[in-house]
Amino acid sequence: MAVRLDDLPLRDDLRGLTPYGAPQAALPVALNVNENTHPVPEEVADDILDGIAHALRDVNRYPDREFTALREGFADYLGHGLSRDQIWVANGSNEVLQHLLQAFAGPGRTAFGFAPTYSMYPLLTRATGASYVAGVRESDYTLDADEAARQIEEADPDVVFLCAPNNPTGTPLRLDVIEAIYAASRGMVIVDEAYQEFAPRDERSALTLLPGRERLVVSRTMSKAFAFAGARVGYLAADPAVIDALRLVRLPYHLSALTQAAATAALRHAPAMLSMVDEIVAQRDRISATLSALGYQPHESWTNFVLFGGVDDPAATWQGLYDRGVLIRDVGIAHSLRVTAGTESESTAFLDALASLGR
Amino acid sequence: MAVRLDDLPLRDDLRGLTPYGAPQAALPVALNVNENTHPVPEEVADDILDGIAHALRDVNRYPDREFTALREGFADYLGHGLSRDQIWVANGSNEVLQHLLQAFAGPGRTAFGFAPTYSMYPLLTRATGASYVAGVRESDYTLDADEAARQIEEADPDVVFLCAPNNPTGTPLRLDVIEAIYAASRGMVIVDEAYQEFAPRDERSALTLLPGRERLVVSRTMSKAFAFAGARVGYLAADPAVIDALRLVRLPYHLSALTQAAATAALRHAPAMLSMVDEIVAQRDRISATLSALGYQPHESWTNFVLFGGVDDPAATWQGLYDRGVLIRDVGIAHSLRVTAGTESESTAFLDALASLGR
Repeated sequence: MAVRLDDLPLRDDLRGLTPYGAPQAALPVALNVNENTHPVPEEVADDILDGIAHALRDVNRYPDREFTALREGFADYLGHGLSRDQIWVANGSNEVLQHLLQAFAGPGRTAFGFAPTYSMYPLLTRATGASYVAGVRESDYTLDADEAARQIEEADPDVVFLCAPNNPTGTPLRLDVIEAIYAASRGMVIVDEAYQEFAPRDERSALTLLPGRERLVVSRTMSKAFAFAGARVGYLAADPAVIDALRLVRLPYHLSALTQAAATAALRHAPAMLSMVDEIVAQRDRISATLSALGYQPHESWTNFVLFGGVDDPAATWQGLYDRGVLIRDVGIAHSLRVTAGTESESTAFLDALASLGR
Repeated sequence: MAVRLDDLPLRDDLRGLTPYGAPQAALPVALNVNENTHPVPEEVADDILDGIAHALRDVNRYPDREFTALREGFADYLGHGLSRDQIWVANGSNEVLQHLLQAFAGPGRTAFGFAPTYSMYPLLTRATGASYVAGVRESDYTLDADEAARQIEEADPDVVFLCAPNNPTGTPLRLDVIEAIYAASRGMVIVDEAYQEFAPRDERSALTLLPGRERLVVSRTMSKAFAFAGARVGYLAADPAVIDALRLVRLPYHLSALTQAAATAALRHAPAMLSMVDEIVAQRDRISATLSALGYQPHESWTNFVLFGGVDDPAATWQGLYDRGVLIRDVGIAHSLRVTAGTESESTAFLDALASLGR
C-alpha cells in the first residue's frame, strides 16, 4: 500500500498544502510566466559556452564561494558607482529574497507587501517562519506616499517588499513613494526591480536612492530582460553591510561554477541581450492598445506583461485561449487576466485568439 | 562612515556569527575539502558541453520544474529497483539536507547527529529554526547499535543525521546500526552517503534498506566520486511521499537548466567518471600506511580522506605543511588532522612534506 504524505512526520504547518507553481503546459504560444520569449542570440550563446567550457576544466573543485568576477560584472552593469562589495547573487531572485528573509525576518518577525503583488512574497516569508502582512493599494494599483507610509507605520514590519514596477499589475512605483516608505520604516526595504529594464529609459531606478540608506535593497533578475530564466540568476545591490549579513545565511558554495561562468559571459553581452527589450516593449504597448480597442481595460504597464480587466468570466476566457493554443495567466484578480508580451507573432496569436472569442 | 552589520536590523540569533567556510587559499596542493582532485575526463567534458549547448537554446524559458530527465538518470545510476519518483535533486547535498530540514524539522523541532560528524548538520539545522542535539560515538568513532538506539530514544529527535561513512573521521557505519536507529526513532532518518563510492565494492549501501522504511532517506552528492563539486549537484532516494514533501518547500525552479543538462550528461558517463575512484582509494590506503610508518595513528577510512591522530600540535603541523605548499584541514579534533587523498603526486607531496617536518 502506498505511503501517503500524512504518514510522514511532516511539519504541521505544511500539512494540506500543495506545491506552488504556475500550470506548465506545452502549448505553441506560452505567455503565462513573463519569460522573455526571444532566445539568447547565437553569438552570445557561443561565448557563454566558451566560458562554461573553461569552468568545466576545474569543475572537480568547489566554486569561488565569493563569486568575485560575477559580482564585478553586475556592479559594472548596474553602474551608479556601485562596487562589487555591494552585490549579492543567488539561484534566481527567489533565492535572493529567501536569503534576505533568513537574515532579517524568520521566526517571530514580520514581512509586508502591498497586495496584489508578487505571489511568492508571502510564501517565501512563511517558509522562513515569519508572518506576512498584506497592505492595500489604491483602486488603480498605485501607491500614495502618505497612505503607504501610514500603513507601514501601523504594521511596523521587519521587511517591506516593494515590487517596482509591480507584478502582476505592471504598475510603476514613484521614487518619492519609496523614500516615504523608507522614512516610515525601521526594517529592511526591498525594492524588487525584476522588470525594471522594461520601464521608460529616462526613468530613474531605486538604485539612485541607495547612498545613505543602509536598510534599502534593490533586487534584480536575469530571468526577464536578459532572457536567462533557465539559468536561475538573481542579484541585488545594497550597502556592503547587507552583503555581510547574507554571507551568514547562504549555503556554502551556493552558486555553481557553471552558473557563475554563464552569467559572467552573458553580462559581457549586455547590449545584445537587452536589444530585445525595445521590441518587447513595442509589443506590450501594441497589446495594450489592441485590448482597449477590443473593449478590455489594460492597466498601465512598465513591465513585459499586461494585466487587463473587463473580463466577464476569466476562467472561460483562459480556457478559450488555451483551446486555441495560447497559454496566459489567471492571477486571481476579479474580471482580469495577465498576458506576457511575446514576439510579434506570439502577440498577434494571442490578440487574434482573444478577438475570436468575442466579448 | 561605514555602516556595520550591527547597524542593521539583523536577527538576534545571527549577531556575532561569522560565515561558515573552510579557509580558501591558492596553494599548489589543496587537500583540504575532500574534493576529487582529478579533473573531469576531456571526452566527458565535451559531452557535458554538448548537453549545455542544447539547453542554452531555450534558456530564456524557465527550466523543467520537475527535472524529470535528471531524476531518471539518478534512478538508473543508483539501481536497487529505484524509480524517478523516489529521487530528489538540489544545488549540492547541503541544499538537499536543507529541504529535508525545512519539511521535517524547522522551528520547535529537533535534529540529531553523532559527534564528531559533518559540521554543516548543526548549522543547517539552526538556520531552519530547529535545535540540534549532538550524540556521542565510541572512542574509535564507531557506533554500537544498542547504545546508538538508546541515545535516539532519549533524545527523541524529529530528524537523525547518519553520515555513512562518517566525515570527518572516515568511519564506516554498519547497516544493522542504521536498522536499530530507525527502529528506535519516530522521525526522519537521513543516511548521508556522500562518500559511499569510496567504500569497498562488496559492501551494501543503505539504499538496500529503503523498502518498507518510509522515514528513511539516503542522500548522495556528485561532488566527490563524480568530480563535480563545482557543478553543485546533490540528490537523494526515498519513498515517493518524501519527494512530495520536498516539493512543498523547494523554491520554484530551484534547479537550473544548465545544472540539469550538465548532471544528466555526466551521469551518462558514470563508468568513466568513477574510474578515478579506484586510484583515489589506492592513494588513501597508501597515505594511511605511510602515516602509520611515520608514527601517526590513521583512522580506518571508507572515504576519500584520512583522519590521523598522534599530532602533538595540529596548528603547527598544519602551518608547516602550508609553508611547504600543502593545504590540509584542521577539523578541531584534538591531536588530529584530516587530509584528502589526491592524485599520486599530490599524495606524495603531502607525505614528503609531513615527513620533512619530523615528529
